Amino acid sequence: MAEDSSTVRVAMIGYAFMGAAHSQAWRNVHRFFDLGVTPEMAVVVGRDGVKAAAAAERLGWQSSATDWREVIAREDIDVVDICTPGDTHAEIAIAALEAGKHVLCEKPLANSVEEADAMVAAAVSARAQGARSMVGFSYRRVPAVALMHRMIADGAVGEIRHVRGQYLQDWITDPEFPLVWRLRKEVAGSGALGDIGAHVLDMAQFVTGQQITGVAAQTETFVGRRPLPEGDGALGAATAGSGAQTGEVTVDDAAVLIARTDGGALATFEATRFATGRKNHIVLEVNGSTGSLVFEFEDMNGLRYYDGSAGDRAGFARIDVTEPTHPYIDGWWPPGHGLGYEHTFVNQARDFLEAIATGADPTPSFEDGAAIQRLLAGVERSAAADAAWTAI
Amino acid sequence: MAEDSSTVRVAMIGYAFMGAAHSQAWRNVHRFFDLGVTPEMAVVVGRDGVKAAAAAERLGWQSSATDWREVIAREDIDVVDICTPGDTHAEIAIAALEAGKHVLCEKPLANSVEEADAMVAAAVSARAQGARSMVGFSYRRVPAVALMHRMIADGAVGEIRHVRGQYLQDWITDPEFPLVWRLRKEVAGSGALGDIGAHVLDMAQFVTGQQITGVAAQTETFVGRRPLPEGDGALGAATAGSGAQTGEVTVDDAAVLIARTDGGALATFEATRFATGRKNHIVLEVNGSTGSLVFEFEDMNGLRYYDGSAGDRAGFARIDVTEPTHPYIDGWWPPGHGLGYEHTFVNQARDFLEAIATGADPTPSFEDGAAIQRLLAGVERSAAADAAWTAI
Amino acid sequence: MAEDSSTVRVAMIGYAFMGAAHSQAWRNVHRFFDLGVTPEMAVVVGRDGVKAAAAAERLGWQSSATDWREVIAREDIDVVDICTPGDTHAEIAIAALEAGKHVLCEKPLANSVEEADAMVAAAVSARAQGARSMVGFSYRRVPAVALMHRMIADGAVGEIRHVRGQYLQDWITDPEFPLVWRLRKEVAGSGALGDIGAHVLDMAQFVTGQQITGVAAQTETFVGRRPLPEGDGALGAATAGSGAQTGEVTVDDAAVLIARTDGGALATFEATRFATGRKNHIVLEVNGSTGSLVFEFEDMNGLRYYDGSAGDRAGFARIDVTEPTHPYIDGWWPPGHGLGYEHTFVNQARDFLEAIATGADPTPSFEDGAAIQRLLAGVERSAAADAAWTAI
Amino acid sequence: MAEDSSTVRVAMIGYAFMGAAHSQAWRNVHRFFDLGVTPEMAVVVGRDGVKAAAAAERLGWQSSATDWREVIAREDIDVVDICTPGDTHAEIAIAALEAGKHVLCEKPLANSVEEADAMVAAAVSARAQGARSMVGFSYRRVPAVALMHRMIADGAVGEIRHVRGQYLQDWITDPEFPLVWRLRKEVAGSGALGDIGAHVLDMAQFVTGQQITGVAAQTETFVGRRPLPEGDGALGAATAGSGAQTGEVTVDDAAVLIARTDGGALATFEATRFATGRKNHIVLEVNGSTGSLVFEFEDMNGLRYYDGSAGDRAGFARIDVTEPTHPYIDGWWPPGHGLGYEHTFVNQARDFLEAIATGADPTPSFEDGAAIQRLLAGVERSAAADAAWTAI
Repeated sequence: MAEDSSTVRVAMIGYAFMGAAHSQAWRNVHRFFDLGVTPEMAVVVGRDGVKAAAAAERLGWQSSATDWREVIAREDIDVVDICTPGDTHAEIAIAALEAGKHVLCEKPLANSVEEADAMVAAAVSARAQGARSMVGFSYRRVPAVALMHRMIADGAVGEIRHVRGQYLQDWITDPEFPLVWRLRKEVAGSGALGDIGAHVLDMAQFVTGQQITGVAAQTETFVGRRPLPEGDGALGAATAGSGAQTGEVTVDDAAVLIARTDGGALATFEATRFATGRKNHIVLEVNGSTGSLVFEFEDMNGLRYYDGSAGDRAGFARIDVTEPTHPYIDGWWPPGHGLGYEHTFVNQARDFLEAIATGADPTPSFEDGAAIQRLLAGVERSAAADAAWTAI
Repeated sequence: MAEDSSTVRVAMIGYAFMGAAHSQAWRNVHRFFDLGVTPEMAVVVGRDGVKAAAAAERLGWQSSATDWREVIAREDIDVVDICTPGDTHAEIAIAALEAGKHVLCEKPLANSVEEADAMVAAAVSARAQGARSMVGFSYRRVPAVALMHRMIADGAVGEIRHVRGQYLQDWITDPEFPLVWRLRKEVAGSGALGDIGAHVLDMAQFVTGQQITGVAAQTETFVGRRPLPEGDGALGAATAGSGAQTGEVTVDDAAVLIARTDGGALATFEATRFATGRKNHIVLEVNGSTGSLVFEFEDMNGLRYYDGSAGDRAGFARIDVTEPTHPYIDGWWPPGHGLGYEHTFVNQARDFLEAIATGADPTPSFEDGAAIQRLLAGVERSAAADAAWTAI
Repeated sequence: MAEDSSTVRVAMIGYAFMGAAHSQAWRNVHRFFDLGVTPEMAVVVGRDGVKAAAAAERLGWQSSATDWREVIAREDIDVVDICTPGDTHAEIAIAALEAGKHVLCEKPLANSVEEADAMVAAAVSARAQGARSMVGFSYRRVPAVALMHRMIADGAVGEIRHVRGQYLQDWITDPEFPLVWRLRKEVAGSGALGDIGAHVLDMAQFVTGQQITGVAAQTETFVGRRPLPEGDGALGAATAGSGAQTGEVTVDDAAVLIARTDGGALATFEATRFATGRKNHIVLEVNGSTGSLVFEFEDMNGLRYYDGSAGDRAGFARIDVTEPTHPYIDGWWPPGHGLGYEHTFVNQARDFLEAIATGADPTPSFEDGAAIQRLLAGVERSAAADAAWTAI
Repeated sequence: MAEDSSTVRVAMIGYAFMGAAHSQAWRNVHRFFDLGVTPEMAVVVGRDGVKAAAAAERLGWQSSATDWREVIAREDIDVVDICTPGDTHAEIAIAALEAGKHVLCEKPLANSVEEADAMVAAAVSARAQGARSMVGFSYRRVPAVALMHRMIADGAVGEIRHVRGQYLQDWITDPEFPLVWRLRKEVAGSGALGDIGAHVLDMAQFVTGQQITGVAAQTETFVGRRPLPEGDGALGAATAGSGAQTGEVTVDDAAVLIARTDGGALATFEATRFATGRKNHIVLEVNGSTGSLVFEFEDMNGLRYYDGSAGDRAGFARIDVTEPTHPYIDGWWPPGHGLGYEHTFVNQARDFLEAIATGADPTPSFEDGAAIQRLLAGVERSAAADAAWTAI
């Protein structure tokens, strides 16, 4: 543990896209929020020592290392932040928890339900010893999404009838886009479903406070083979024997599903990387008996609210979610001066650190993450069985 | 037949919401479009003679009648326009076609596949005798929807990957809203599914030129019993024995489904009357390999187009569909002076009359209408079987 | 006068764009609204007999004529509807009023303040004899604009601080677009200012209930000479001597102004035909001490309202102005089934006919029209004097 | 100077809203951009030592100080970043430049043209010695605004006809809002005009590459007296003699103006703090002969472009300005993961540091800032003279 009890020393495993976003959070969170603890960016870990050192320099970590096991064993580390692909989450997280570290793990929690369950078991044990654990469903930390959650809990829409969620991207519509790790099941677990579908499914359950109880789903891989990335030895090995310069895409490009919730709502969801023109298009709409709420990520500082009680002056109102009374905003800028994508990670770090400081268990917990994993597995089972209705 | 070959005399059966919209079309279509034939509003038919006479006066019909069989038998009638609830479509349409009349029939074509098939048979026979038949999927006649169809056919989006359609309303969210005929299966056939879902399903197939090949669906009736409408004897009878002032809602309030098309696309659809704040919210989005198109009825004079070939200047562009080169617009106003809901019926009448004048068979044909009927039946079968995948 | 006191027989002078829009109104207004009187489309008047006869046939008038003086003299005519260019308004309107006819005159009321004043004098005299007069600021009849007026009068925004109005078009950005009559001062009076600026200035005064008391303005003619329209003898004569195939544009292409109102508000206005991409873009925003309202014509069935009393749930709400309690909507379609451009004329005819039926004086009156004329003249004087502040 | 030539040590004067935003920039800029130099947050300066020390701790500065003169005299300081109110800009900036420091000065450059001119003279002298100077018109660094600038320079809209700019806020609509320093002329220089109007005027000139040559303006102070802020001794003194708990608002609440540019365009501008519901609403639209561009800050990651060459498929397209080829984006996140308000300051710091590293002079220069000051002075002169046309 850090010598100063008000400091928590963080080790981050992985330093790619998510690692950069998490670093920005650790670097800045205490500049905006009053927390009981201050993060110290102790060490970043990567397999390639040269690259890891460069990442430490660029992202602002005090040091770098190549062996996460050694880092986890260090006494001066309080927090382990897991930003690697999903196939390594379970091993790292369980080891970290067993070592008594607080663990923040990127989503999806794991690549299988079995892994997720093992992680939950480790989290439960560690929790009893005071180690906090949280899974990084960062979009819960968009102030507008948090406000949506709060308003629904406050009864702003009444009894929920419909939920519709979409997470649409278009970065692999080109068949010449290479076979990166996110397109390989053994690393990524699944494709659009786990990468982005997991987010919108979590958001839906978070804002409604309801759980999905059953699904019927279809998935599709529109482009079955892709060029290998340049210089990717691992992938080359993976396709050894094919003699080709291309490899097989082993995850879904898109998933669509209908669902029911334990609150009696009907829901539809869609996750795809083939929606041309939709860069990072998340839409989540909830219709209740007396009102509705709509969030769109492209307008991430806005939340649309239809208040059915307003009579013939009712309409979908765009709440500019930048008022000091809105979630997280007291730490940020004056009204109208909106946040960006990366701030979700700062807000997430705030919640995680606050939990550490106050000794509370943060959400989403590993149990929440495992529940999403079970849901994703249910979606895949349904899709594999010709969309058969699958209880979650 | 009318004495003047350039005049077609129309008999309209039914004069409620749809009857008013159709009347507006017959009254005005030849004022905006040059057609080979001119409609004459000969007679409106309704069971209640007094009300029918009042409707004739208000809507501009030359006369009224109470027996549609007699009207169909008249030699001076060329066109029969069916605006009644779905349970009467088959009988009227078949009789009219057998009498050699051109028939425009409101959607859904019928309340069952069997009825629809019988209507198709009648249409085929009559067609050989020169009688035209068309089903009233009026939203095809929104200029922006017709442009969407044209652009997709012209390759504006490439190979289609995704279709998502929503038709959301909110007029029965109040549990005290009465049990009107649209909520009774024996009259309406189905609920949101057939009333509005049919529209968006037809629009999706129309704009893509693809057919849905399979579905998994769920439907729901959120409010199971409702007050009887005042003075509705028929309904009173229908609920005799219950001893209550309420009756059972026998149709769906909402339907959600996922689907596949014969062109390899994944699709999602939703139709509901419980989306609070959504008055008549139709959204249809198509994502292709090189572009995307989005239509929203609340912005009915706009069409959003993402042209992937525009490089880093690409974006969803709102085409103001009011240029003379856009579908139907040459008959209307200068650029920027948009149309409203009712104009879809005028445009529909134009297409129907043009088909009569030129001796062509209009679309959507009764076969198209029957195909939608089969699709609706498939949705209902799937919903009844726990969302089992159902081939169409 | 018509024999049947419940019928008013209309003569329409001019049959171009506005004539077509007015004809649509006369043809349909009584099909949607219960009025004390029913319009009869008696005669359309145009200088060219063949064209006038064709217009009568196409637009649904019982007859045509070439001499408006003769028509005005006819006893069977109750209403004179003036749809000609502005240079003829005064002569026709005064003659019609002196003949005891009700007069609906297109805007702007006249091409000069002097003409407008003479028309007011005639209207005042005729009013005493029961002849109604109204000027056709049709955008007041957009339901959303009428609702904006009603809400402001009801205190929905508090004390008005700001008004900003824009009317942007782009139909003459091409320098090869010909020198049509709207670009010639002797016919049109002014350019963008009188044609479209007049609308948005009237709308601003209408919705706020405040009058503009002073302006500073600039106008500009971006393209000074244009090709003569083909076969336009009158124009050919007008440019005789130039020896060229082009003629001088003698009106403004654009006008910008700042203003103050008698209610203490600051205002900005802009009217242009050179806003590339803006087809018929009208925006009117009013900011008050407790709320704001925004209308955009491209979303003509919507009105955006910010209700400052909603605390941190406040936002600009899009009211779908299609509820039966909204202005004019009780005559039209169910919620969510919006209107189009032409319906403003139907609603206008409704108000005019209702005034005739009830013996009330309709608004906007000729006095209102003359006030706008004075405002337009003030804008032109300011622009001619280097934007000098000009009291209205 | 810093010992390591690749490090620049920064002193920031002032630590309120702007100071926090600048600190975030200094803390993070080198984490996202490869620069020839790395900023070191040496010292933050404030009059109150305790508060300054707390600010240093919170914002991440190595130390704090109370005397900016002493700090400027220090050899280890390379950059002076001025974040104080406008009344102190000239004195600090001139002293810093004379001491050979690079100076980044918040906008508006000064509170008077005289001050601004003196600052320019100092900048010119210092420039010859290699000291860089820049004024903080941060909205130029919104990627969409920078893209707008680039596209216009590339001819994307043709010859510019119209510019319209609005900067609307509503934070003082409540008459009970206190008399903060921004409402006092002796500190702030002017009100909405200089605070936010300066931004949109600068943006307009920046994106068009044109200069405003004349204006006619009106300003207004809607609420003339306001409660004194609690515990504001300075203000208490300022109103000594009034014996009241309120003080006089000595700046404008709102300014409206029309303008002409040296490129032949007509322009309108508005800046206000009384637009209820508009939190930080910046709109800038440019209409050219062949296209148009629109920026709205509430959608800061989007830019709307109308490309007139697209024929009847043309429409305002929302470019999602998050592609790596867009300005600044190569340093940030993947497409679709937008930025927020604060990133404009990071991008600004990037440009400033790059200029230092490469020995180039950054823009906007002090000359640019002084030109804006002259423009603001012209607006005030016009407003004081009943909107008389005032050459700039």
